[in-house]
Amino acid sequence: MTFIETLAAAWQKNDSLLCVGLDPDPDRFPAPLAGRRDAIFEFCRNIVDATANLVCAFKPQIAHFAAHRAESALERLIAHIHEKHPGIPVILDAKRGDVGATARQYAVEAFERYQADAVTVNPYMGRDSVEPYFVYAGKGVILLCRTSNTGGGDLQLLETGNDGERLFERVARLAVTEWNHNGQCALVVGATFPAEIARVRELVGDMPLLVPGIGAQGGDIAATVKAGQTARGDGLIVSSSRAILYAGSNADYAQAARSAASAARAEINRFRSCEQQ
Amino acid sequence: MTFIETLAAAWQKNDSLLCVGLDPDPDRFPAPLAGRRDAIFEFCRNIVDATANLVCAFKPQIAHFAAHRAESALERLIAHIHEKHPGIPVILDAKRGDVGATARQYAVEAFERYQADAVTVNPYMGRDSVEPYFVYAGKGVILLCRTSNTGGGDLQLLETGNDGERLFERVARLAVTEWNHNGQCALVVGATFPAEIARVRELVGDMPLLVPGIGAQGGDIAATVKAGQTARGDGLIVSSSRAILYAGSNADYAQAARSAASAARAEINRFRSCEQQ
Repeated sequence: MTFIETLAAAWQKNDSLLCVGLDPDPDRFPAPLAGRRDAIFEFCRNIVDATANLVCAFKPQIAHFAAHRAESALERLIAHIHEKHPGIPVILDAKRGDVGATARQYAVEAFERYQADAVTVNPYMGRDSVEPYFVYAGKGVILLCRTSNTGGGDLQLLETGNDGERLFERVARLAVTEWNHNGQCALVVGATFPAEIARVRELVGDMPLLVPGIGAQGGDIAATVKAGQTARGDGLIVSSSRAILYAGSNADYAQAARSAASAARAEINRFRSCEQQ
Repeated sequence: MTFIETLAAAWQKNDSLLCVGLDPDPDRFPAPLAGRRDAIFEFCRNIVDATANLVCAFKPQIAHFAAHRAESALERLIAHIHEKHPGIPVILDAKRGDVGATARQYAVEAFERYQADAVTVNPYMGRDSVEPYFVYAGKGVILLCRTSNTGGGDLQLLETGNDGERLFERVARLAVTEWNHNGQCALVVGATFPAEIARVRELVGDMPLLVPGIGAQGGDIAATVKAGQTARGDGLIVSSSRAILYAGSNADYAQAARSAASAARAEINRFRSCEQQ
């Protein structure tokens, strides 16, 4: 199955648009993990096992592994998800972007080394910087479009051309009309700007939108779901990291993460169209 | 010394604007390295040792290490450059870009783990995605501005706002007027577009420009140097990778790389302003 098909099946099976972002931060790990040699892997694996039937995807963020020389933990974590939770796709959040020959190496990193099902990619360098990822049939290519951070508008909101199309709208339109080979594309649109989620949804039809920014970043779940869902009540990958990962700080942290994920899933589902419920 | 000071000293000492890009590709390694366990490190180290007194910087491209699980080789390579060739700054070509909390992890990766002197960063996500790198006093932050690839213009050439300023010009202006904390900024401007190098030079004063795209990518050295040099005849980091790395394919590959680097340096120097020569 392709990334998009696996995602759609997970939306159904787990009745969930929730994605748990795996951003391990050893400084915030619960006490029982202190000093353990393989703490990053253990922490993430326990969160994964506690939440896997509540989510539509997992999204490990690679910087949080690379900063700690934990590439091996990331490889083992993704292998663990594939083995123990085979219906749940893994999005490698790497936001890579480079010219063709180098982009091919990044594609090898994401899809061959880490065996991710999808990868996030930065569109600033244009078409030949995104094409090498599409060569991997069935893999997902999730382009940054409108990001949730405070500086996200510095470039993304600039009006371009004669018709006042904003840069993020241009990216969305390029993704739909020119770059979406074999339906592999999705877009990142931050939860902090519901009007812009709605605008992107208008432009891209049923293309999946990865929406970070709920939870710790303060995005509003009701507004996000209403603005971004498709007519079928899905189409969204609503990502939460810190609010779930660090819901508890003691031995029961995995259970606390499960409770937080369960609450987030329910809150998201409250606002989905009736058709789907 | 800061990155910018080390770079300026290397321009002088080695009379060179040439940067050797370290993009190891095991498929193109010379025969004597075939099958060697640590071939990536050995290859890069031998290129470095053969060219160090001809260059102003080395630029390892991280994807070419990550795709081969060679993070350890990259760490050792940079440590080797610092130890054996202390006046030559190392630019980690990573083109990272993410929101603040994650950007901090990428900054840890570049400056603490790898001990790079500068890192390339993608500006698409705006100010808070670049600020975490500036926290490292003296380190260089090299923002993508106008890239040398064929799709580079898809977004970078879009006219923005009312005055027709193109996106790459906006990035250059933001770099100069808002993001250049403590003079740590530089910009990436591809060699394939000399008119745009000249335009960026106009906008940014003496800020260093990292110019990839000569050699294998076909950029013109004369046009690049004339368009991009400062009044002092420097200000450029002219990067060449494959044309130098793979100049030879036999046991004498390091010597072949040295000859190619020497020729590139001389060709660049032919077009520098007389003042400096």
